[in-house]
Amino acid sequence: MRAEIITIGDEILIGQIHDTNATWISQRLNEAGIKVGERTTVGDDSEQIDEAIDRALARAEVVIVTGGLGPTKDDITKSTLASYFGCGLALHRPTYEFLEKMLAERGIAFNELNRGQAVLPTGCTVLPNRNGTAPGMWFERDGRVLVSLPGVPFEMKALMSDEVLPRLCDQFRLQANVHRTVITFGLAESVLATTIAPWEEALPSYLKLAYLPNPQFIRLRLSAYEVDRDRAEREIEAQFAALRKLIPAYFLGFEGATVQSAVADMLTERGETLAVAESCTGGVLSASFTAMAGASAYFLGGVVSYSNDIKTSVLGVDSQTLAAHGAVSREVAEQMAAGVRRLMNSTYAIATTGIAGPGGGTPDKPVGTVWMAIATPEGVYSRLIHYGLLREQNIQRATAQVTNMLRLYMIGGMNVLVNEGVL
Amino acid sequence: MRAEIITIGDEILIGQIHDTNATWISQRLNEAGIKVGERTTVGDDSEQIDEAIDRALARAEVVIVTGGLGPTKDDITKSTLASYFGCGLALHRPTYEFLEKMLAERGIAFNELNRGQAVLPTGCTVLPNRNGTAPGMWFERDGRVLVSLPGVPFEMKALMSDEVLPRLCDQFRLQANVHRTVITFGLAESVLATTIAPWEEALPSYLKLAYLPNPQFIRLRLSAYEVDRDRAEREIEAQFAALRKLIPAYFLGFEGATVQSAVADMLTERGETLAVAESCTGGVLSASFTAMAGASAYFLGGVVSYSNDIKTSVLGVDSQTLAAHGAVSREVAEQMAAGVRRLMNSTYAIATTGIAGPGGGTPDKPVGTVWMAIATPEGVYSRLIHYGLLREQNIQRATAQVTNMLRLYMIGGMNVLVNEGVL
Repeated sequence: MRAEIITIGDEILIGQIHDTNATWISQRLNEAGIKVGERTTVGDDSEQIDEAIDRALARAEVVIVTGGLGPTKDDITKSTLASYFGCGLALHRPTYEFLEKMLAERGIAFNELNRGQAVLPTGCTVLPNRNGTAPGMWFERDGRVLVSLPGVPFEMKALMSDEVLPRLCDQFRLQANVHRTVITFGLAESVLATTIAPWEEALPSYLKLAYLPNPQFIRLRLSAYEVDRDRAEREIEAQFAALRKLIPAYFLGFEGATVQSAVADMLTERGETLAVAESCTGGVLSASFTAMAGASAYFLGGVVSYSNDIKTSVLGVDSQTLAAHGAVSREVAEQMAAGVRRLMNSTYAIATTGIAGPGGGTPDKPVGTVWMAIATPEGVYSRLIHYGLLREQNIQRATAQVTNMLRLYMIGGMNVLVNEGVL
Repeated sequence: MRAEIITIGDEILIGQIHDTNATWISQRLNEAGIKVGERTTVGDDSEQIDEAIDRALARAEVVIVTGGLGPTKDDITKSTLASYFGCGLALHRPTYEFLEKMLAERGIAFNELNRGQAVLPTGCTVLPNRNGTAPGMWFERDGRVLVSLPGVPFEMKALMSDEVLPRLCDQFRLQANVHRTVITFGLAESVLATTIAPWEEALPSYLKLAYLPNPQFIRLRLSAYEVDRDRAEREIEAQFAALRKLIPAYFLGFEGATVQSAVADMLTERGETLAVAESCTGGVLSASFTAMAGASAYFLGGVVSYSNDIKTSVLGVDSQTLAAHGAVSREVAEQMAAGVRRLMNSTYAIATTGIAGPGGGTPDKPVGTVWMAIATPEGVYSRLIHYGLLREQNIQRATAQVTNMLRLYMIGGMNVLVNEGVL
């Protein structure tokens, strides 16, 4: 079963709004076992709409069209559809009566533009829209279905959920598509791919693996199309369990997991606490924990020691160390971590000091140089990383990476840090 | 001039991510005077990609393709393009050397998959990607241009801004569309519109005004289409200068300005400094300043005092005050601001303490209750605001609003705070 989505609207093509309708419809169709083969966005132009529909119906059993159903002149989807399906337009009584009643209730005068909303193609099944003036339209030809829906998101969503999806399930007796995602952290895509190659090659052929990298993580998604849902879910679960054994230190969890959530889960479970000291990450490290509800269970607080004076006066970094090694150094990172752990009396502490950029670099310590440290009951460990030139990326990456140091330590102590090449 | 955008990736078709790349590219092309005629999203499937490219190139002078350039098996854009343009693939020396160097600096082993990233179609101009492993590729045929870019948003954006847009402007000698935006903060859209109505009515007819509201700001954009760039820019500058005089307390600055940047500009200009103390904003307040390059000129540091112990031990909040009034109170907010100002010896300090949610609310102090304070050489001022139930929004809004308190104070002292109804 294949579907295509056509969204209509100049506001999408000029980038004024994100095409969130297409994303939402994609999710719902996939959940229902319908694979979305292609998505197209066209302007309010009848020739373009006509061509897009023709192409989509040639390839897909189901085509969902949204947008262009408003009462104003620039909305021309309805007449384009009537002409495409070779039918006329006529006043649809039930829609007319519904509109009259709805507008009266809202105290809006009924005019020609409103009446026009009840004029619909005669060749479609009308899907009543309880939330707005433009009903949905269900067309069929040669066993294929085209549905036209209004572009207002909550109207579209109600029509999809209440009318379109149940009818599609009935008509096509759908099989399921299953997607599950895990989050990995700490291995470059190329290394990850090499490491898990044997696992990937042994996957059953109906499971499709996709790599979804972003600056922070690599997500691995297994998809199975048109399968028995229970069987596919069991198989994927077993495959991910095997994957976890292959890369225990890199496997953060399932969809939605982050390095922070992995650490937060361990801290909460063990009743341990955390404090942070930040220079180059400037508050983002604290914020990455406090963004999660329930952070007060383990997060005591943080110090953003942007100026060197604060490093000495608040965190107790030795001023001679600062003068001798500079603020971006192993010694200062370690003293920051140890200092904030002492100050806040926490189980663990993490610290960053670096040159986020774009200014401040030197030949010795170019932009992107970051020292990070973790302080634990056992001792203090630190690491140097060179990132690139982009300030925001450097801050994000350092935040994730120092948190990952703590995560690795919490998994199995200093040995894991050594095994993973962190120390 | 017409463009089309093709985004490649199963993750878009299943609705796992919004296609934000297509939105961003649409905006940039429109700003450059290139109309986006159609957008298509296809899967990682060479036949689909091939067909989409063929169709787009038949209709548009410029085609931008993103995604499918990773090192793994599911990424097939590169080979599809080579075959489409009838050229081979070969190792591209400069890319190879760049990758070797970049991976070495990051401590990542160089393997076959990385090497593969330097194997590129021989028929394209390579656009170097300083931020990742997949370079951009610029193809030409019959005066038409196809550009292939990586799907990672920050890599794609840097390549578009630094390489693609300048080349397109050169090659197609684009006529100018001028868009300039100012940011206002603190007035509701309807009040703003009424206040500036006389100014709006006196605008020259070729300047088009648009209101672009979002939860934090209202942006006002003036656009002039197909005009003499210099003349239009001078006119818009003069108009915005007049606008600024009408709404001095609400005019933050030009595109990209934020409450933070407005404060940062004033601090830098005056040689004054800032420290922050945060409870409910949890680091976001610090991060909102340190996100800007050059923050070290005025930002001394911050304390995230998530636990009450830290409020007393580090910031010197009186423990009896805490016990009597609770952590979310005028008294504690004021003592936090005064405490961090003293601790860091800054000109100004700002502080937040509140209940971000979703837990922690009480009948007296429901979720969304936030006390905020500013400490100045003249005295300490505080304010109570009730936000809603959403944690992230409460944090973001409190961050902007306490910073705006300081901004108003810096514009004209306590009087402005009183006139604007803040105190």
